Amino acid sequence: MKAFIYIAAAATLVTLAAPASAQFAKPEDAIKYRQSALFVMSQHFGRVGAMANGRVPFDAKVAADNAEVVAAMAKLPWAGFGPGTEKGGNTKAKPEIWTEQAKFKGGNDKLVAETAKLAAAAKTGNLDDLKTAFAATADTCKACHDAFRNK
Amino acid sequence: MKAFIYIAAAATLVTLAAPASAQFAKPEDAIKYRQSALFVMSQHFGRVGAMANGRVPFDAKVAADNAEVVAAMAKLPWAGFGPGTEKGGNTKAKPEIWTEQAKFKGGNDKLVAETAKLAAAAKTGNLDDLKTAFAATADTCKACHDAFRNK
Repeated sequence: MKAFIYIAAAATLVTLAAPASAQFAKPEDAIKYRQSALFVMSQHFGRVGAMANGRVPFDAKVAADNAEVVAAMAKLPWAGFGPGTEKGGNTKAKPEIWTEQAKFKGGNDKLVAETAKLAAAAKTGNLDDLKTAFAATADTCKACHDAFRNK
Repeated sequence: MKAFIYIAAAATLVTLAAPASAQFAKPEDAIKYRQSALFVMSQHFGRVGAMANGRVPFDAKVAADNAEVVAAMAKLPWAGFGPGTEKGGNTKAKPEIWTEQAKFKGGNDKLVAETAKLAAAAKTGNLDDLKTAFAATADTCKACHDAFRNK
């Protein structure tokens, strides 16, 4: 599992030192920010998935480039879920994000970790590694959406 | 300045090799993508600007982390301005984006170059360097908005 050799190097720590309220001019900006970051991430993740699932031919460079954006974007949304951002805009956020913060934070940390593995796997150029990492990342997305996002 | 997210992310290179038409399921996705990437960029750019303009105390690490996200995000929006994405959603894009492609591409390339300089300046920890790079980047934003974005 060559992929795992790269994990230590690729994984980056996100240290959250302050509430999101300090970072955004208003709650709507925080909501728009997290939605924007997640949407950008989803577009690049979809391109990796298309290759992992065989819908488009595997191109190692394209996969690696897109997975790298996924991993970079995954670090951003957390900052947009601070206190006071429960309502506003067209948010689908469930209240559980704030009432079950430890669980939600765990989901966020898992996303960051799995997308780092995805980027590392993509760099190996091995399609099987990419498929494994893609599936693990997709499971992480789904688990959080099921628990914390309204339909 | 603990009131900020600290993103211990390595600089990531984003290389987008394919035309936008190949990358998005529908034009609305391309429009939402470019708007999302620009919005995320604007939030981080604003945090750099707050320090460059003296509205908040200068924190070299926070400036560097945010400038790095700005530089990474600056590489993304171009892909969302492909053919067929002139209309849709709530786009403010002017037709000149597509009728004056060389000029628009020049603006995009300048944005990528200036934000890279901004990230480099932020890394020096020198506030004067940061101010200079911030002003140059802001001018680049404004030039493109004036020419290519409806109010």
